[in-house]
Amino acid sequence: MNPDDFLDAYLKDRQKIIEEALQRYLPDEDAIPQELHTATHYSVFAGGKRIRPILCLAAHEACGGDLAAAMPTACALELIHTYSLIHDDLPVMDNDDLRRGKPTCHKVFGDAMAILAGDALLTEAFVLLAHSEKVRLAADRRLAVIEEIATAAGIAGMVGGQALDILAEKNKPDFKGLEAIHRRKTGALIIAAVKTGAILASASEQKITALAAYGFHIGMAFQIADDILNVEGNREEMGKSTRSDEQHGKVTYPSLLGMDAAKKKLAEHVDAAQDSIENFDSRALPLRVIARYIMERKS
Amino acid sequence: MNPDDFLDAYLKDRQKIIEEALQRYLPDEDAIPQELHTATHYSVFAGGKRIRPILCLAAHEACGGDLAAAMPTACALELIHTYSLIHDDLPVMDNDDLRRGKPTCHKVFGDAMAILAGDALLTEAFVLLAHSEKVRLAADRRLAVIEEIATAAGIAGMVGGQALDILAEKNKPDFKGLEAIHRRKTGALIIAAVKTGAILASASEQKITALAAYGFHIGMAFQIADDILNVEGNREEMGKSTRSDEQHGKVTYPSLLGMDAAKKKLAEHVDAAQDSIENFDSRALPLRVIARYIMERKS
Repeated sequence: MNPDDFLDAYLKDRQKIIEEALQRYLPDEDAIPQELHTATHYSVFAGGKRIRPILCLAAHEACGGDLAAAMPTACALELIHTYSLIHDDLPVMDNDDLRRGKPTCHKVFGDAMAILAGDALLTEAFVLLAHSEKVRLAADRRLAVIEEIATAAGIAGMVGGQALDILAEKNKPDFKGLEAIHRRKTGALIIAAVKTGAILASASEQKITALAAYGFHIGMAFQIADDILNVEGNREEMGKSTRSDEQHGKVTYPSLLGMDAAKKKLAEHVDAAQDSIENFDSRALPLRVIARYIMERKS
Repeated sequence: MNPDDFLDAYLKDRQKIIEEALQRYLPDEDAIPQELHTATHYSVFAGGKRIRPILCLAAHEACGGDLAAAMPTACALELIHTYSLIHDDLPVMDNDDLRRGKPTCHKVFGDAMAILAGDALLTEAFVLLAHSEKVRLAADRRLAVIEEIATAAGIAGMVGGQALDILAEKNKPDFKGLEAIHRRKTGALIIAAVKTGAILASASEQKITALAAYGFHIGMAFQIADDILNVEGNREEMGKSTRSDEQHGKVTYPSLLGMDAAKKKLAEHVDAAQDSIENFDSRALPLRVIARYIMERKS
């Protein structure tokens, strides 16, 4: 099998088992109020790439763990990611009408229900992480995972990054400022994804540190690729507006560095990600292939 | 000391130590972005009554625990309560301009920063609950506390209750519907406060159940008292608009039952709360006095 076919089959397979798990873990259909259930499901099952849970599972397997033990954590990461998209898309935030080719949550359910759907998904992520029946794992390891994810999603991480991003509309950041935004807004949760996968497999400190570096570079690469796709991408394939960054006067890697230098930066991060895990054995193959996918993806 | 003096001194003392702990636990002042730090601190230190943390600590002591072990949990409950107020006050939700005598978070910092401040406080609550250095407690007990609080704050609890409340604007609830809203919106987190206080003190199942019943009745009493104060309260003492429920055509206990029956219902819940903990020893005195306070408070 050539690497592209492997990647394609691998991602599809992982997306499928993650989506089945998300269906099992989310509060079931007779949950009330029905509207909140519908709004959360709408956004969770709107066709995401599932990069964070896939990375968590891949890091877990690269450290010798088995899928089942990391599945609740992988899904919790996706719930948190989805909540962040719902809130970011709100009219008072980034005001996006389209996400993954579908109307955004607030366009369908209204702003109030979208805010609550986001709040609900963030909270249910912690229900899932703490729920003791679902996975038999040492309690202290599960506490470490909760702390890692909450910290990455909190003021020092994702929420802080989104606040910096909102403030950057008024005060355009320089390159250092732009990196600070993305390290927190995108990077922190991706780092948490691979670190928690490793923690759940009882990996050594050395492996956890190596995976954190991999996660950092993958996260930055992911963001630069997003910025590039926003300029060069195909609206149909992307399922969302392209060139919107330019229209909104948003500072991006291509706008700050120029397109060629942005692409070079992207390749450097992907190389650095590969280098971070060079001492891992063949069980890290998916992590290596995902790093390439980040650079080459079309949507 | 007569009961009123005791209550007054007790509440003031507890508010003080809780506020000192909140100062310690929140990310420190050089956290960036400064705006997010300022917005979260503004709302957390806007003069709340600290009922949920006080109940958590009181339940903990009633079960023989010492304050320090329950303080992070008590403060996490207050962070979650504060986040819920910030989001509830937003223009697209209840649209309140005044809270505790001060302009609401979004009036001062704008809607986007208020949404993020709420998201940040909810997330930091879980950082605090999971952070392993702060309190030496068995990991499985701390996981049980996280699950209890996340469930109470989630779809089956507070967020679900707020969604029902928003939907009730279009479809006016009957008495059963109103109780369902408040059991989730107000009751669930108050029940979690006393239950987690007990869990952290390694209380027996019997005691935890008794305290959950106490929490349920206190929660309902608290909400009925709120509805009554909205009609009869003094705007100055309350620090927020009174008679706003009537103006917004909101269904309340007095509007559904009449004022006399609402007051009778309030007294019944307070009596039932007292009955729930009649087998507790003198260490439950604060819980008993708080139950009376709920009924007699002026703000």
